[in-house]
Amino acid sequence: MRADQTALIALDWGTTRLRAYAVDGAGAVLERLSADEGIMAVPPGGFPETLRRHVGAWMERAPHAPVVMAGMVGSRNGWVEAPYLACPVSVDALARAFAEVPLGAGRIGHIVPGLTARDAAGPPDVMRGEETKIAGCGVTDGLVVMPGTHSKWARIRGGRIEGFSTFMTGDFYGALKDHTILGKLAEEPADPSGFSRGLAAARRPGGLTHLAFSARTLVLMGELAPAEVGPYLSGLLIGTEVDNGLAQAAPEDEIVLVADGVFATSYQAALADRGRSSRLVDPEDAVVAGLRRLVAARS
Amino acid sequence: MRADQTALIALDWGTTRLRAYAVDGAGAVLERLSADEGIMAVPPGGFPETLRRHVGAWMERAPHAPVVMAGMVGSRNGWVEAPYLACPVSVDALARAFAEVPLGAGRIGHIVPGLTARDAAGPPDVMRGEETKIAGCGVTDGLVVMPGTHSKWARIRGGRIEGFSTFMTGDFYGALKDHTILGKLAEEPADPSGFSRGLAAARRPGGLTHLAFSARTLVLMGELAPAEVGPYLSGLLIGTEVDNGLAQAAPEDEIVLVADGVFATSYQAALADRGRSSRLVDPEDAVVAGLRRLVAARS
Repeated sequence: MRADQTALIALDWGTTRLRAYAVDGAGAVLERLSADEGIMAVPPGGFPETLRRHVGAWMERAPHAPVVMAGMVGSRNGWVEAPYLACPVSVDALARAFAEVPLGAGRIGHIVPGLTARDAAGPPDVMRGEETKIAGCGVTDGLVVMPGTHSKWARIRGGRIEGFSTFMTGDFYGALKDHTILGKLAEEPADPSGFSRGLAAARRPGGLTHLAFSARTLVLMGELAPAEVGPYLSGLLIGTEVDNGLAQAAPEDEIVLVADGVFATSYQAALADRGRSSRLVDPEDAVVAGLRRLVAARS
Repeated sequence: MRADQTALIALDWGTTRLRAYAVDGAGAVLERLSADEGIMAVPPGGFPETLRRHVGAWMERAPHAPVVMAGMVGSRNGWVEAPYLACPVSVDALARAFAEVPLGAGRIGHIVPGLTARDAAGPPDVMRGEETKIAGCGVTDGLVVMPGTHSKWARIRGGRIEGFSTFMTGDFYGALKDHTILGKLAEEPADPSGFSRGLAAARRPGGLTHLAFSARTLVLMGELAPAEVGPYLSGLLIGTEVDNGLAQAAPEDEIVLVADGVFATSYQAALADRGRSSRLVDPEDAVVAGLRRLVAARS
Protein backbone atom coordinates (compact mmCIF):
# COMPACT_ATOMS: atom_id res chain seq x y z
CA MET A 1 0.00 0.00 0.00
CA ARG A 2 1.35 3.42 -0.90
CA ALA A 3 0.50 5.99 1.73
CA ASP A 4 -1.04 8.55 -0.53
CA GLN A 5 -3.54 6.11 -2.04
CA THR A 6 -5.63 5.69 1.11
CA ALA A 7 -8.68 7.94 0.78
CA LEU A 8 -10.82 6.42 3.56
CA ILE A 9 -10.22 4.40 6.70
CA ALA A 10 -13.43 2.42 7.14
CA LEU A 11 -14.38 0.40 10.22
CA ASP A 12 -17.14 -2.06 10.99
CA TRP A 13 -16.86 -2.23 14.76
CA GLY A 14 -19.39 -4.60 16.24
CA THR A 15 -20.07 -6.33 19.53
CA THR A 16 -17.55 -9.13 19.08
CA ARG A 17 -15.34 -8.12 16.10
CA LEU A 18 -13.51 -5.15 14.69
CA ARG A 19 -12.99 -5.07 10.93
CA ALA A 20 -11.10 -2.28 9.20
CA TYR A 21 -10.39 -1.36 5.59
CA ALA A 22 -7.95 1.07 3.98
CA VAL A 23 -9.83 2.21 0.87
CA ASP A 24 -8.51 4.13 -2.13
CA GLY A 25 -10.29 6.90 -4.01
CA ALA A 26 -11.88 4.44 -6.44
CA GLY A 27 -13.27 2.25 -3.66
CA ALA A 28 -10.71 -0.53 -3.89
CA VAL A 29 -9.67 -2.08 -0.56
CA LEU A 30 -5.89 -1.65 -0.26
CA GLU A 31 -5.54 -3.38 3.07
CA ARG A 32 -7.89 -5.03 5.53
CA LEU A 33 -7.78 -6.46 9.03
CA SER A 34 -10.09 -8.29 11.39
CA ALA A 35 -9.66 -8.72 15.15
CA ASP A 36 -11.71 -10.13 18.00
CA GLU A 37 -11.68 -6.78 19.75
CA GLY A 38 -15.35 -6.01 19.47
CA ILE A 39 -16.71 -3.30 21.74
CA MET A 40 -17.29 -5.82 24.54
CA ALA A 41 -13.52 -6.39 24.69
CA VAL A 42 -12.60 -2.71 24.93
CA PRO A 43 -12.01 -1.43 28.49
CA PRO A 44 -13.65 1.84 29.61
CA GLY A 45 -11.94 4.74 27.88
CA GLY A 46 -9.95 2.33 25.73
CA PHE A 47 -11.42 3.11 22.32
CA PRO A 48 -8.78 5.66 21.13
CA GLU A 49 -5.93 3.33 22.07
CA THR A 50 -7.59 0.27 20.51
CA LEU A 51 -8.24 2.16 17.28
CA ARG A 52 -4.63 3.39 17.12
CA ARG A 53 -3.25 -0.07 17.77
CA HIS A 54 -5.14 -1.48 14.77
CA VAL A 55 -5.18 1.35 12.21
CA GLY A 56 -2.66 3.86 13.60
CA ALA A 57 -0.21 3.09 10.80
CA TRP A 58 -2.87 3.81 8.17
CA MET A 59 -3.81 7.05 9.91
CA GLU A 60 -0.18 8.23 9.89
CA ARG A 61 0.32 7.34 6.25
CA ALA A 62 -2.93 9.04 5.24
CA PRO A 63 -3.29 12.01 7.60
CA HIS A 64 -6.23 13.48 5.66
CA ALA A 65 -8.26 10.30 5.13
CA PRO A 66 -11.55 10.32 7.03
CA VAL A 67 -11.86 7.67 9.76
CA VAL A 68 -15.45 6.46 9.71
CA MET A 69 -16.98 3.73 11.85
CA ALA A 70 -20.24 1.81 11.69
CA GLY A 71 -21.78 -0.67 14.10
CA MET A 72 -22.19 -1.08 17.83
CA VAL A 73 -19.25 1.29 18.40
CA GLY A 74 -21.98 3.95 18.25
CA SER A 75 -24.19 2.28 20.86
CA ARG A 76 -24.64 3.06 24.53
CA ASN A 77 -21.92 0.51 25.30
CA GLY A 78 -19.60 1.80 22.57
CA TRP A 79 -17.23 4.73 22.16
CA VAL A 80 -19.92 7.37 22.16
CA GLU A 81 -23.66 7.02 21.66
CA ALA A 82 -24.66 8.12 18.17
CA PRO A 83 -28.41 8.62 18.71
CA TYR A 84 -30.77 6.61 16.50
CA LEU A 85 -32.37 8.36 13.52
CA ALA A 86 -36.02 7.57 12.87
CA CYS A 87 -37.13 6.09 9.55
CA PRO A 88 -37.92 7.09 6.89
CA VAL A 89 -34.41 8.40 6.37
CA SER A 90 -32.24 9.28 3.38
CA VAL A 91 -28.55 8.59 2.92
CA ASP A 92 -27.94 12.34 3.12
CA ALA A 93 -29.67 12.57 6.48
CA LEU A 94 -27.61 9.64 7.78
CA ALA A 95 -24.42 11.33 6.61
CA ARG A 96 -25.36 14.59 8.35
CA ALA A 97 -25.94 12.81 11.66
CA PHE A 98 -22.48 11.31 12.16
CA ALA A 99 -21.31 11.42 15.78
CA GLU A 100 -17.79 12.74 16.30
CA VAL A 101 -15.00 11.50 18.54
CA PRO A 102 -11.53 13.02 19.08
CA LEU A 103 -8.72 10.83 17.75
CA GLY A 104 -5.86 12.99 19.08
CA ALA A 105 -3.69 15.60 17.39
CA GLY A 106 -6.81 17.49 16.33
CA ARG A 107 -8.14 14.68 14.19
CA ILE A 108 -11.83 13.74 14.37
CA GLY A 109 -13.38 10.31 13.88
CA HIS A 110 -16.94 9.78 12.67
CA ILE A 111 -19.53 7.23 13.79
CA VAL A 112 -22.61 6.40 11.73
CA PRO A 113 -25.86 6.51 13.73
CA GLY A 114 -28.22 3.57 13.94
CA LEU A 115 -31.86 3.66 12.87
CA THR A 116 -35.22 3.12 14.50
CA ALA A 117 -38.41 2.15 12.70
CA ARG A 118 -41.89 2.23 14.12
CA ASP A 119 -45.05 1.14 12.42
CA ALA A 120 -48.33 2.68 13.55
CA ALA A 121 -48.89 1.83 17.22
CA GLY A 122 -46.30 -0.94 17.03
CA PRO A 123 -43.19 -1.49 19.09
CA PRO A 124 -39.96 0.11 17.87
CA ASP A 125 -37.35 -1.77 15.85
CA VAL A 126 -33.65 -0.92 15.80
CA MET A 127 -30.52 -1.48 13.73
CA ARG A 128 -26.93 -0.35 14.07
CA GLY A 129 -24.41 -1.15 11.36
CA GLU A 130 -26.91 -2.49 8.84
CA GLU A 131 -27.90 1.06 7.77
CA THR A 132 -24.39 1.36 6.33
CA LYS A 133 -24.69 -1.90 4.40
CA ILE A 134 -28.01 -0.69 3.00
CA ALA A 135 -26.37 2.54 1.85
CA GLY A 136 -23.76 0.41 0.08
CA CYS A 137 -26.25 -1.68 -1.91
CA GLY A 138 -27.43 1.02 -4.30
CA VAL A 139 -31.09 0.04 -4.15
CA THR A 140 -33.78 2.52 -5.22
CA ASP A 141 -36.93 0.49 -4.68
CA GLY A 142 -36.76 -2.90 -3.05
CA LEU A 143 -35.82 -4.95 -0.04
CA VAL A 144 -32.38 -5.36 1.47
CA VAL A 145 -32.12 -8.63 3.40
CA MET A 146 -29.30 -9.06 5.91
CA PRO A 147 -29.40 -12.54 7.51
CA GLY A 148 -27.80 -13.36 10.83
CA THR A 149 -28.40 -13.86 14.53
CA HIS A 150 -30.88 -11.00 14.24
CA SER A 151 -31.75 -10.70 10.54
CA LYS A 152 -32.83 -7.32 9.19
CA TRP A 153 -35.21 -6.71 6.28
CA ALA A 154 -35.20 -3.09 5.10
CA ARG A 155 -37.73 -1.51 2.73
CA ILE A 156 -36.27 1.07 0.30
CA ARG A 157 -38.53 3.51 -1.56
CA GLY A 158 -37.12 6.18 -3.86
CA GLY A 159 -33.68 5.58 -2.36
CA ARG A 160 -34.88 6.24 1.19
CA ILE A 161 -34.95 3.66 3.99
CA GLU A 162 -38.68 3.57 4.72
CA GLY A 163 -38.57 1.06 7.55
CA PHE A 164 -37.32 -2.37 8.53
CA SER A 165 -38.04 -5.48 10.56
CA THR A 166 -35.82 -7.70 12.67
CA PHE A 167 -36.18 -11.50 12.83
CA MET A 168 -34.33 -13.38 15.58
CA THR A 169 -33.76 -16.34 13.27
CA GLY A 170 -30.19 -17.26 14.20
CA ASP A 171 -30.78 -16.64 17.89
CA PHE A 172 -33.91 -18.85 17.85
CA TYR A 173 -32.06 -21.57 15.94
CA GLY A 174 -29.32 -21.83 18.55
CA ALA A 175 -31.73 -21.78 21.48
CA LEU A 176 -34.19 -24.30 20.00
CA LYS A 177 -31.58 -26.69 18.66
CA ASP A 178 -29.55 -26.81 21.85
CA HIS A 179 -32.15 -26.25 24.57
CA THR A 180 -35.47 -27.90 23.63
CA ILE A 181 -36.59 -31.47 23.01
CA LEU A 182 -35.66 -30.96 19.33
CA GLY A 183 -31.97 -30.90 20.14
CA LYS A 184 -32.16 -34.31 21.79
CA LEU A 185 -33.28 -35.75 18.45
CA ALA A 186 -30.72 -34.11 16.18
CA GLU A 187 -27.76 -36.14 15.01
CA GLU A 188 -24.53 -34.97 13.40
CA PRO A 189 -23.26 -34.76 10.72
CA ALA A 190 -26.35 -33.00 9.47
CA ASP A 191 -28.16 -34.19 6.35
CA PRO A 192 -28.97 -31.02 4.36
CA SER A 193 -32.02 -32.62 2.72
CA GLY A 194 -34.00 -31.62 5.80
CA PHE A 195 -33.72 -27.94 4.84
CA SER A 196 -36.17 -27.97 1.94
CA ARG A 197 -38.63 -29.98 4.02
CA GLY A 198 -38.42 -27.31 6.73
CA LEU A 199 -39.00 -24.60 4.11
CA ALA A 200 -42.14 -26.42 2.99
CA ALA A 201 -43.34 -26.87 6.58
CA ALA A 202 -43.09 -23.10 7.17
CA ARG A 203 -46.00 -22.59 4.74
CA ARG A 204 -48.38 -24.51 6.97
CA PRO A 205 -50.72 -22.88 9.52
CA GLY A 206 -50.41 -23.10 13.28
CA GLY A 207 -47.44 -20.85 14.00
CA LEU A 208 -43.84 -21.63 14.84
CA THR A 209 -44.42 -23.20 18.28
CA HIS A 210 -46.75 -25.71 16.61
CA LEU A 211 -44.75 -26.31 13.45
CA ALA A 212 -41.46 -26.90 15.27
CA PHE A 213 -43.01 -29.90 17.03
CA SER A 214 -43.31 -31.63 13.66
CA ALA A 215 -39.53 -32.22 13.75
CA ARG A 216 -40.14 -34.49 16.74
CA THR A 217 -43.23 -36.26 15.42
CA LEU A 218 -41.71 -36.89 11.98
CA VAL A 219 -38.68 -38.52 13.61
CA LEU A 220 -40.94 -40.52 15.93
CA MET A 221 -42.86 -41.82 12.91
CA GLY A 222 -39.69 -42.61 10.98
CA GLU A 223 -40.45 -39.94 8.36
CA LEU A 224 -37.48 -37.67 9.11
CA ALA A 225 -33.94 -38.83 9.82
CA PRO A 226 -32.32 -37.54 13.04
CA ALA A 227 -29.55 -36.08 10.86
CA GLU A 228 -32.18 -33.97 9.07
CA VAL A 229 -33.52 -32.34 12.25
CA GLY A 230 -31.05 -29.43 12.36
CA PRO A 231 -31.51 -28.47 8.68
CA TYR A 232 -35.30 -28.98 9.02
CA LEU A 233 -35.40 -26.50 11.92
CA SER A 234 -33.19 -24.09 9.94
CA GLY A 235 -35.53 -24.35 6.93
CA LEU A 236 -38.58 -23.81 9.13
CA LEU A 237 -37.11 -20.69 10.74
CA ILE A 238 -35.71 -19.20 7.53
CA GLY A 239 -38.92 -20.02 5.66
CA THR A 240 -40.94 -18.26 8.37
CA GLU A 241 -38.65 -15.24 8.13
CA VAL A 242 -38.76 -15.10 4.33
CA ASP A 243 -42.56 -15.42 4.21
CA ASN A 244 -43.05 -12.65 6.76
CA GLY A 245 -40.37 -10.51 5.13
CA LEU A 246 -41.77 -10.89 1.63
CA ALA A 247 -45.21 -9.84 2.92
CA GLN A 248 -43.74 -6.31 2.87
CA ALA A 249 -42.48 -6.56 -0.74
CA ALA A 250 -44.11 -5.42 -3.96
CA PRO A 251 -43.90 -7.93 -6.84
CA GLU A 252 -41.60 -5.61 -8.82
CA ASP A 253 -39.26 -4.95 -5.89
CA GLU A 254 -35.62 -5.82 -6.31
CA ILE A 255 -34.39 -8.09 -3.52
CA VAL A 256 -30.79 -7.66 -2.45
CA LEU A 257 -29.29 -10.30 -0.19
CA VAL A 258 -26.28 -9.13 1.83
CA ALA A 259 -24.71 -12.42 2.83
CA ASP A 260 -21.92 -14.88 2.20
CA GLY A 261 -21.19 -18.51 2.98
CA VAL A 262 -24.01 -20.69 4.29
CA PHE A 263 -26.28 -17.67 4.85
CA ALA A 264 -26.06 -16.79 1.16
CA THR A 265 -26.82 -20.35 0.08
CA SER A 266 -29.68 -20.87 2.52
CA TYR A 267 -31.44 -17.56 1.97
CA GLN A 268 -31.08 -17.64 -1.81
CA ALA A 269 -32.62 -21.12 -1.75
CA ALA A 270 -35.44 -19.95 0.52
CA LEU A 271 -36.18 -16.91 -1.64
CA ALA A 272 -36.07 -19.01 -4.82
CA ASP A 273 -38.44 -21.51 -3.20
CA ARG A 274 -40.88 -18.60 -2.74
CA GLY A 275 -40.43 -17.56 -6.38
CA ARG A 276 -38.12 -14.60 -5.84
CA SER A 277 -34.69 -14.05 -7.34
CA SER A 278 -32.14 -12.05 -5.40
CA ARG A 279 -28.99 -10.08 -6.08
CA LEU A 280 -26.17 -11.19 -3.80
CA VAL A 281 -23.89 -8.56 -2.23
CA ASP A 282 -20.87 -9.47 -0.12
CA PRO A 283 -21.26 -8.04 3.42
CA GLU A 284 -17.76 -6.55 3.50
CA ASP A 285 -18.26 -4.94 0.09
CA ALA A 286 -21.53 -3.47 1.35
CA VAL A 287 -19.92 -1.91 4.42
CA VAL A 288 -17.07 -0.35 2.45
CA ALA A 289 -19.35 0.93 -0.32
CA GLY A 290 -21.79 2.25 2.28
CA LEU A 291 -19.18 4.18 4.24
CA ARG A 292 -17.79 5.62 0.97
CA ARG A 293 -21.24 6.71 -0.09
CA LEU A 294 -21.99 8.30 3.28
CA VAL A 295 -18.70 10.20 3.31
CA ALA A 296 -19.34 11.39 -0.25
CA ALA A 297 -22.80 12.62 0.77
CA ARG A 298 -21.20 14.93 3.36
CA SER A 299 -19.05 16.82 0.88
CA MET B 1 -59.09 -46.58 53.38
CA ARG B 2 -61.14 -49.73 53.71
CA ALA B 3 -59.91 -52.41 51.36
CA ASP B 4 -63.19 -53.23 49.73
CA GLN B 5 -63.87 -49.60 48.74
CA THR B 6 -61.12 -49.43 46.11
CA ALA B 7 -62.75 -50.00 42.73
CA LEU B 8 -59.90 -48.74 40.51
CA ILE B 9 -56.14 -48.27 40.81
CA ALA B 10 -55.37 -45.42 38.43
CA LEU B 11 -51.88 -44.31 37.39
CA ASP B 12 -50.57 -41.33 35.46
CA TRP B 13 -47.03 -42.53 34.73
CA GLY B 14 -45.08 -39.95 32.79
CA THR B 15 -41.49 -39.25 31.82
CA THR B 16 -40.45 -37.74 35.15
CA ARG B 17 -43.24 -38.56 37.62
CA LEU B 18 -45.48 -41.39 38.71
CA ARG B 19 -48.86 -40.45 40.21
CA ALA B 20 -51.29 -43.05 41.50
CA TYR B 21 -54.84 -42.95 42.84
CA ALA B 22 -56.95 -45.47 44.70
CA VAL B 23 -60.47 -44.66 43.53
CA ASP B 24 -63.79 -45.87 44.94
CA GLY B 25 -66.84 -46.91 42.96
CA ALA B 26 -68.26 -43.37 42.98
CA GLY B 27 -65.03 -41.83 41.65
CA ALA B 28 -63.77 -40.42 44.95
CA VAL B 29 -60.01 -40.62 45.46
CA LEU B 30 -59.42 -42.62 48.64
CA GLU B 31 -55.65 -42.40 48.61
CA ARG B 32 -53.07 -40.81 46.32
CA LEU B 33 -49.30 -40.77 45.91
CA SER B 34 -46.72 -39.03 43.74
CA ALA B 35 -43.10 -40.05 43.24
CA ASP B 36 -40.21 -38.93 41.05
CA GLU B 37 -39.98 -42.37 39.50
CA GLY B 38 -41.04 -41.44 36.00
CA ILE B 39 -40.27 -43.94 33.26
CA MET B 40 -36.79 -42.46 32.76
CA ALA B 41 -35.91 -43.55 36.31
CA VAL B 42 -37.08 -47.16 35.88
CA PRO B 43 -34.30 -49.64 35.00
CA PRO B 44 -34.85 -52.12 32.14
CA GLY B 45 -37.36 -54.74 33.23
CA GLY B 46 -38.05 -52.81 36.42
CA PHE B 47 -41.65 -51.78 35.80
CA PRO B 48 -43.42 -54.62 37.68
CA GLU B 49 -41.25 -54.12 40.76
CA THR B 50 -41.63 -50.32 40.68
CA LEU B 51 -45.40 -50.60 40.38
CA ARG B 52 -45.59 -53.08 43.29
CA ARG B 53 -43.43 -50.90 45.48
CA HIS B 54 -45.80 -47.96 45.06
CA VAL B 55 -49.26 -49.52 44.82
CA GLY B 56 -48.69 -53.16 45.90
CA ALA B 57 -50.58 -52.58 49.16
CA TRP B 58 -53.61 -51.23 47.26
CA MET B 59 -53.48 -54.20 44.87
CA GLU B 60 -53.52 -56.67 47.77
CA ARG B 61 -56.39 -54.93 49.52
CA ALA B 62 -58.42 -54.73 46.32
CA PRO B 63 -57.55 -57.89 44.38
CA HIS B 64 -60.28 -57.32 41.80
CA ALA B 65 -59.71 -53.59 41.14
CA PRO B 66 -58.45 -52.90 37.61
CA VAL B 67 -54.93 -51.39 37.44
CA VAL B 68 -54.95 -48.88 34.58
CA MET B 69 -52.11 -46.63 33.48
CA ALA B 70 -51.92 -43.59 31.22
CA GLY B 71 -48.94 -41.63 29.94
CA MET B 72 -45.45 -42.33 28.68
CA VAL B 73 -45.50 -45.73 30.41
CA GLY B 74 -47.08 -46.84 27.12
CA SER B 75 -44.34 -45.37 24.94
CA ARG B 76 -41.41 -47.05 23.25
CA ASN B 77 -39.30 -46.22 26.33
CA GLY B 78 -41.98 -47.38 28.76
CA TRP B 79 -43.24 -50.71 30.07
CA VAL B 80 -44.66 -51.87 26.78
CA GLU B 81 -45.48 -49.87 23.68
CA ALA B 82 -49.21 -49.28 23.37
CA PRO B 83 -49.44 -48.36 19.67
CA TYR B 84 -50.93 -44.98 18.80
CA LEU B 85 -54.54 -44.87 17.64
CA ALA B 86 -55.30 -42.50 14.77
CA CYS B 87 -57.86 -39.70 15.17
CA PRO B 88 -60.77 -39.40 14.86
CA VAL B 89 -61.30 -41.75 17.75
CA SER B 90 -64.06 -42.43 20.27
CA VAL B 91 -63.70 -43.18 23.96
CA ASP B 92 -64.97 -46.68 23.24
CA ALA B 93 -62.25 -47.27 20.66
CA LEU B 94 -59.62 -46.03 23.12
CA ALA B 95 -60.94 -48.40 25.78
CA ARG B 96 -60.82 -51.36 23.39
CA ALA B 97 -57.18 -50.66 22.53
CA PHE B 98 -55.64 -50.95 25.99
CA ALA B 99 -52.27 -52.69 25.99
CA GLU B 100 -51.88 -55.42 28.60
CA VAL B 101 -48.97 -56.21 30.91
CA PRO B 102 -48.67 -59.11 33.39
CA LEU B 103 -48.60 -57.96 37.01
CA GLY B 104 -47.90 -61.40 38.54
CA ALA B 105 -50.21 -63.95 40.12
CA GLY B 106 -52.34 -63.97 36.99
CA ARG B 107 -53.32 -60.31 37.30
CA ILE B 108 -53.27 -58.09 34.19
CA GLY B 109 -52.48 -54.35 34.05
CA HIS B 110 -53.85 -52.07 31.35
CA ILE B 111 -52.14 -49.20 29.52
CA VAL B 112 -54.08 -46.56 27.59
CA PRO B 113 -52.73 -45.99 24.04
CA GLY B 114 -51.65 -42.58 22.79
CA LEU B 115 -53.14 -40.84 19.79
CA THR B 116 -51.92 -39.53 16.46
CA ALA B 117 -53.57 -36.84 14.40
CA ARG B 118 -52.81 -35.94 10.83
CA ASP B 119 -54.37 -33.17 8.80
CA ALA B 120 -54.42 -33.52 5.04
CA ALA B 121 -50.84 -33.76 3.76
CA GLY B 122 -49.50 -32.38 7.03
CA PRO B 123 -46.97 -33.85 9.44
CA PRO B 124 -48.30 -36.12 12.19
CA ASP B 125 -49.01 -34.93 15.72
CA VAL B 126 -48.89 -37.14 18.80
CA MET B 127 -50.10 -37.27 22.40
CA ARG B 128 -49.77 -39.79 25.19
CA GLY B 129 -51.56 -39.25 28.49
CA GLU B 130 -53.64 -36.29 27.36
CA GLU B 131 -56.18 -38.58 25.64
CA THR B 132 -57.13 -39.80 29.12
CA LYS B 133 -57.59 -36.25 30.42
CA ILE B 134 -59.81 -35.51 27.43
CA ALA B 135 -61.92 -38.56 28.20
CA GLY B 136 -62.32 -37.21 31.73
CA CYS B 137 -63.59 -33.78 30.71
CA GLY B 138 -67.00 -34.84 29.43
CA VAL B 139 -66.97 -32.56 26.40
CA THR B 140 -69.32 -33.26 23.48
CA ASP B 141 -68.43 -30.41 21.12
CA GLY B 142 -65.55 -28.12 21.90
CA LEU B 143 -61.88 -27.70 22.57
CA VAL B 144 -59.87 -29.23 25.39
CA VAL B 145 -56.77 -27.15 26.13
CA MET B 146 -53.95 -28.74 28.13
CA PRO B 147 -51.11 -26.22 28.70
CA GLY B 148 -47.57 -27.24 29.47
CA THR B 149 -44.10 -27.75 28.05
CA HIS B 150 -45.85 -29.11 24.97
CA SER B 151 -49.45 -27.82 25.13
CA LYS B 152 -52.17 -29.86 23.45
CA TRP B 153 -55.38 -28.48 21.91
CA ALA B 154 -57.90 -31.20 21.09
CA ARG B 155 -61.03 -30.77 18.97
CA ILE B 156 -64.06 -32.78 20.14
CA ARG B 157 -67.05 -33.35 17.85
CA GLY B 158 -70.02 -35.46 18.90
CA GLY B 159 -67.94 -36.83 21.77
CA ARG B 160 -65.16 -38.06 19.46
CA ILE B 161 -61.61 -36.72 19.47
CA GLU B 162 -61.40 -35.36 15.91
CA GLY B 163 -57.81 -34.18 16.02
CA PHE B 164 -55.37 -32.05 17.98
CA SER B 165 -52.37 -29.75 17.76
CA THR B 166 -49.27 -29.43 19.89
CA PHE B 167 -47.65 -26.09 20.74
CA MET B 168 -44.14 -26.10 22.24
CA THR B 169 -44.96 -23.05 24.34
CA GLY B 170 -43.26 -24.00 27.60
CA ASP B 171 -40.24 -25.49 25.83
CA PHE B 172 -39.82 -22.31 23.73
CA TYR B 173 -40.19 -20.12 26.80
CA GLY B 174 -37.36 -21.83 28.64
CA ALA B 175 -35.06 -21.84 25.62
CA LEU B 176 -35.72 -18.23 24.62
CA LYS B 177 -35.61 -16.80 28.12
CA ASP B 178 -32.39 -18.54 29.10
CA HIS B 179 -30.51 -18.85 25.81
CA THR B 180 -31.16 -15.79 23.61
CA ILE B 181 -30.44 -12.08 23.92
CA LEU B 182 -33.83 -11.70 25.62
CA GLY B 183 -32.62 -13.51 28.71
CA LYS B 184 -29.79 -11.03 29.19
CA LEU B 185 -32.39 -8.27 29.55
CA ALA B 186 -34.75 -9.99 31.97
CA GLU B 187 -34.58 -9.07 35.62
CA GLU B 188 -36.06 -10.84 38.63
CA PRO B 189 -38.39 -10.69 40.46
CA ALA B 190 -40.66 -10.55 37.44
CA ASP B 191 -43.26 -7.80 37.07
CA PRO B 192 -46.45 -9.55 35.88
CA SER B 193 -47.70 -6.42 34.10
CA GLY B 194 -45.58 -7.46 31.12
CA PHE B 195 -47.91 -10.43 30.47
CA SER B 196 -50.86 -8.47 29.08
CA ARG B 197 -48.49 -6.45 26.90
CA GLY B 198 -47.09 -9.67 25.47
CA LEU B 199 -50.64 -10.92 24.83
CA ALA B 200 -51.35 -7.74 22.88
CA ALA B 201 -48.08 -8.02 20.92
CA ALA B 202 -49.03 -11.53 19.76
CA ARG B 203 -51.85 -10.02 17.66
CA ARG B 204 -49.37 -8.12 15.50
CA PRO B 205 -48.03 -9.38 12.15
CA GLY B 206 -44.49 -10.56 11.44
CA GLY B 207 -44.36 -13.90 13.21
CA LEU B 208 -42.78 -14.96 16.48
CA THR B 209 -39.12 -14.48 15.51
CA HIS B 210 -39.93 -10.86 14.68
CA LEU B 211 -42.29 -10.13 17.56
CA ALA B 212 -39.95 -11.54 20.21
CA PHE B 213 -37.35 -8.90 19.28
CA SER B 214 -39.74 -6.22 20.51
CA ALA B 215 -38.91 -7.27 24.09
CA ARG B 216 -35.38 -6.05 23.41
CA THR B 217 -36.28 -2.86 21.59
CA LEU B 218 -38.94 -1.84 24.12
CA VAL B 219 -36.38 -2.18 26.92
CA LEU B 220 -33.79 -0.29 24.87
CA MET B 221 -36.27 2.56 24.40
CA GLY B 222 -37.26 2.59 28.06
CA GLU B 223 -40.80 1.45 27.25
CA LEU B 224 -40.64 -1.94 29.01
CA ALA B 225 -39.02 -2.60 32.37
CA PRO B 226 -36.43 -5.39 32.51
CA ALA B 227 -38.59 -7.07 35.16
CA GLU B 228 -41.44 -7.24 32.61
CA VAL B 229 -39.39 -9.12 29.97
CA GLY B 230 -40.13 -12.64 31.24
CA PRO B 231 -43.91 -12.10 31.56
CA TYR B 232 -43.94 -10.25 28.20
CA LEU B 233 -42.32 -13.24 26.50
CA SER B 234 -44.76 -15.57 28.27
CA GLY B 235 -47.71 -13.44 27.09
CA LEU B 236 -46.36 -13.37 23.55
CA LEU B 237 -45.95 -17.17 23.41
CA ILE B 238 -49.27 -17.98 25.12
CA GLY B 239 -51.07 -15.36 22.99
CA THR B 240 -49.61 -16.94 19.85
CA GLU B 241 -50.72 -20.38 21.01
CA VAL B 242 -54.22 -19.23 21.93
CA ASP B 243 -54.74 -17.38 18.63
CA ASN B 244 -53.62 -20.38 16.58
CA GLY B 245 -55.57 -22.78 18.77
CA LEU B 246 -58.79 -20.75 18.62
CA ALA B 247 -58.53 -20.66 14.81
CA GLN B 248 -59.79 -24.26 15.00
CA ALA B 249 -62.77 -23.41 17.24
CA ALA B 250 -66.35 -22.66 16.33
CA PRO B 251 -67.93 -19.69 18.12
CA GLU B 252 -70.33 -21.96 20.02
CA ASP B 253 -67.64 -24.43 21.10
CA GLU B 254 -67.18 -25.04 24.78
CA ILE B 255 -63.56 -24.49 25.84
CA VAL B 256 -62.27 -26.65 28.65
CA LEU B 257 -58.96 -25.73 30.23
CA VAL B 258 -57.20 -28.60 32.02
CA ALA B 259 -54.75 -26.73 34.22
CA ASP B 260 -53.95 -25.57 37.70
CA GLY B 261 -51.66 -22.99 39.30
CA VAL B 262 -50.00 -20.40 37.09
CA PHE B 263 -51.03 -22.24 33.91
CA ALA B 264 -54.69 -21.91 34.87
CA THR B 265 -54.33 -18.20 35.63
CA SER B 266 -52.30 -17.37 32.51
CA TYR B 267 -54.37 -19.33 30.01
CA GLN B 268 -57.70 -18.19 31.43
CA ALA B 269 -56.46 -14.61 31.14
CA ALA B 270 -55.26 -15.18 27.57
CA LEU B 271 -58.54 -16.81 26.54
CA ALA B 272 -60.55 -14.03 28.20
CA ASP B 273 -58.41 -11.44 26.41
CA ARG B 274 -59.50 -13.10 23.15
CA GLY B 275 -63.15 -13.01 24.21
CA ARG B 276 -63.55 -16.66 25.22
CA SER B 277 -64.65 -18.02 28.57
CA SER B 278 -63.35 -21.41 29.67
CA ARG B 279 -64.34 -24.14 32.09
CA LEU B 280 -61.44 -25.07 34.36
CA VAL B 281 -60.78 -28.75 35.13
CA ASP B 282 -58.10 -29.88 37.58
CA PRO B 283 -55.52 -32.10 35.77
CA GLU B 284 -55.59 -34.82 38.44
CA ASP B 285 -59.39 -34.88 38.43
CA ALA B 286 -59.28 -35.21 34.63
CA VAL B 287 -56.92 -38.21 34.73
CA VAL B 288 -58.97 -40.04 37.36
CA ALA B 289 -62.29 -39.31 35.65
CA GLY B 290 -60.80 -40.29 32.30
CA LEU B 291 -59.48 -43.65 33.50
CA ARG B 292 -62.84 -44.38 35.19
CA ARG B 293 -64.71 -43.55 32.01
CA LEU B 294 -62.38 -45.72 29.89
CA VAL B 295 -62.70 -48.66 32.25
CA ALA B 296 -66.49 -48.26 32.27
CA ALA B 297 -66.52 -48.25 28.47
CA ARG B 298 -64.93 -51.72 28.45
CA SER B 299 -67.64 -53.38 30.49
